[in-house]
Amino acid sequence: MKNIAIIGYGTVGSGTVELFEKNREAIDKKVERDCDIKYILDLRDFPGDPYEDRMIKDFNIILNDPEIEVVAELVGGATFAYDYTKALLSAGKSVVTSNKELVATHGAELIKLANEHNCSYLFEASVGGGIPIIRPLNKCLAGNKILQISGILNGTTNFILYKMINDQMTFEDALKLAQENGYAEANPTADVEGHDACRKICILASLAYGKHIYPDYVHCSGISHITLDDVAYAENAGFAIKLIGCASMLENGKINAMVSPRFVEKSNLLSNVNDVFNAITITGDGVGDVMFYGAGAGKLPTASAVVGDIIDCLMHHSISIPLHWDDSEDNNFIADYKDAKVSMYVRVEVKEDIANIKSKLSETFGTVLFIERDNRPENELAFITSTMVEREIDKKLDQIKDKAEVKSKIRLL
Amino acid sequence: MKNIAIIGYGTVGSGTVELFEKNREAIDKKVERDCDIKYILDLRDFPGDPYEDRMIKDFNIILNDPEIEVVAELVGGATFAYDYTKALLSAGKSVVTSNKELVATHGAELIKLANEHNCSYLFEASVGGGIPIIRPLNKCLAGNKILQISGILNGTTNFILYKMINDQMTFEDALKLAQENGYAEANPTADVEGHDACRKICILASLAYGKHIYPDYVHCSGISHITLDDVAYAENAGFAIKLIGCASMLENGKINAMVSPRFVEKSNLLSNVNDVFNAITITGDGVGDVMFYGAGAGKLPTASAVVGDIIDCLMHHSISIPLHWDDSEDNNFIADYKDAKVSMYVRVEVKEDIANIKSKLSETFGTVLFIERDNRPENELAFITSTMVEREIDKKLDQIKDKAEVKSKIRLL
Repeated sequence: MKNIAIIGYGTVGSGTVELFEKNREAIDKKVERDCDIKYILDLRDFPGDPYEDRMIKDFNIILNDPEIEVVAELVGGATFAYDYTKALLSAGKSVVTSNKELVATHGAELIKLANEHNCSYLFEASVGGGIPIIRPLNKCLAGNKILQISGILNGTTNFILYKMINDQMTFEDALKLAQENGYAEANPTADVEGHDACRKICILASLAYGKHIYPDYVHCSGISHITLDDVAYAENAGFAIKLIGCASMLENGKINAMVSPRFVEKSNLLSNVNDVFNAITITGDGVGDVMFYGAGAGKLPTASAVVGDIIDCLMHHSISIPLHWDDSEDNNFIADYKDAKVSMYVRVEVKEDIANIKSKLSETFGTVLFIERDNRPENELAFITSTMVEREIDKKLDQIKDKAEVKSKIRLL
Repeated sequence: MKNIAIIGYGTVGSGTVELFEKNREAIDKKVERDCDIKYILDLRDFPGDPYEDRMIKDFNIILNDPEIEVVAELVGGATFAYDYTKALLSAGKSVVTSNKELVATHGAELIKLANEHNCSYLFEASVGGGIPIIRPLNKCLAGNKILQISGILNGTTNFILYKMINDQMTFEDALKLAQENGYAEANPTADVEGHDACRKICILASLAYGKHIYPDYVHCSGISHITLDDVAYAENAGFAIKLIGCASMLENGKINAMVSPRFVEKSNLLSNVNDVFNAITITGDGVGDVMFYGAGAGKLPTASAVVGDIIDCLMHHSISIPLHWDDSEDNNFIADYKDAKVSMYVRVEVKEDIANIKSKLSETFGTVLFIERDNRPENELAFITSTMVEREIDKKLDQIKDKAEVKSKIRLL
């Protein structure tokens, strides 16, 4: 018998138990041994729950039981979860998790710990929910130099933008609908300001580039300032606005990572990723573009990734499954995002003759693509710049700030 | 030093050497040892090739060299490749391949052989070129019962259909263009009649359902009979026509597998997969739908999957990487495709009053959705049936064959 413990019986925890029990026969066959969930740790009581007999409140029971080979840490956060994970890995017990905060904050340390104790720390569920992405990036694409990762990594913001684009809802109304549907929390900051997506792009970039990229060093802007005017201009120019987590290696070897709204061309499959779905495109020097799409959150989709990791650990008892990035002591290898080349959508409020401003912009930027929308106010102008270093774009806009006040800026993907 | 041999220096073989050498430093770091390609076996001469010093013509040099841990079999076919692979696995050397014919024909036997000799037989490149699909299905989705696999598994036919849909080219003209672009071979039968896609869906279904599904038992129809009339009706009804390899488990536990053209709804991301790209959607009982998209063929994309498998084998020396399906001695577990429920697009030539036929069809089928196209001949009628067992649809069409001759039938996905 191979024994498993679950820490945290919330949405993902109960989904993990449900999916595991449902497909237990097939899982036993894969692992070639009977497998069972022996303990479920949660501080709450669940009277009448079918698994009530396995509920415990004392972490040490799991830590000290030599029969437990794998633990699913599904409490979240970086406090208790951090202590539990360190203790378990140090005891040679593999840990699998959906905890993006913990992986983004302490991933390098925990991976190293697993490696030192011949066990594994796996976190397929931490990015993209049920979408296979960690293992494909780590294994299938291992022969590639990763040129770029770009993804819709947060379902809540994608739902909001989808409703803004398709149903002409304002940001505020779309957020309210997301909250009513249970897609957004009462305090939606982590989602709408991009912090959740930021943790996820940091995990993917750390894996791709072999060095821990801490969220604190990554520029992050959300979608709360996007208006229906921006959506209309995007539509007319052939784009959809998406919140994109992006990482790439610049020519100087530095890593450029960022979360921000982007104009995504309609011909890019990412622009067709609607509702709460997630999708990640990885560009490798061998494979070109590959895209991974699916439910980026939710009880059973996330449980799917957790159970997959549990099975992998059970099949590799006493072997550390190779997955690695080095810790980083400084952020010297992270590029300043203002140094990256980008093309920018800009919406301005014009304070003098619009024809003058247009010619001034063309002169300043070289090529400028002016775009239109229905009912454009006379003093509004929107345009897309050619590709240049972002700092240069800012400088050029600053030069004309008396004549044209910037109301919105969104990078093109 | 960890040593590798390449068998077959054609497109994929030379791409594998190129990608490996390009990223060798990073690969060495991942494997934590220096890695090198020691031999390249090909019967042809390559004078002046940068790797000429490693060229050999005698397979036994590879077989008998204890330094060789991993061999990439990139010759294709099921004759030499079969003998080589058996000999290598029996000698405990891992084999990785892009050879879908060999995997679809002898996969169960070769996997078993690898398992018995503590080495691995990996074939990520055999389906979807560089798209990660074998490992995600085998590992990441291991906790799911796989409800359905449906994919665009052949780039040549997708290119042809794309040109028919987007540029109104006839099948013949689009095929010619595909040949001119090097996407289709002089004898295009294996691609256009669906045999290539059939091998690939068999590999995926064998992995998902744990039993070897031989291509001979799988119904397969191609795209050569599709006309621009069908394309026009599809467009008007909100569909794109795609060649889809499909496998699912029926309620009675039997496997339904098939390759055939399908009407794919425009809202389904598969309908937006254009040009020579491939995409595979897997539906699991936990994860829901996940889609994998990318270049399904080509030198470096396929090499990306081969090199990924090589790295995995090098990191698991003397360990058989778990991947398994049982051999099957009969085809009793394969459902008769006529027993599966489906909705069908039908185009008929009408031999009596069209209003009569319409009412007759509505009476026979219950609900029928009639569809239109520009310049529809007066004696032509196209419609989509409700969902029913395919055998029933055939029976019903047979009942009215004197009045309406079937010119085209395409299943809905």
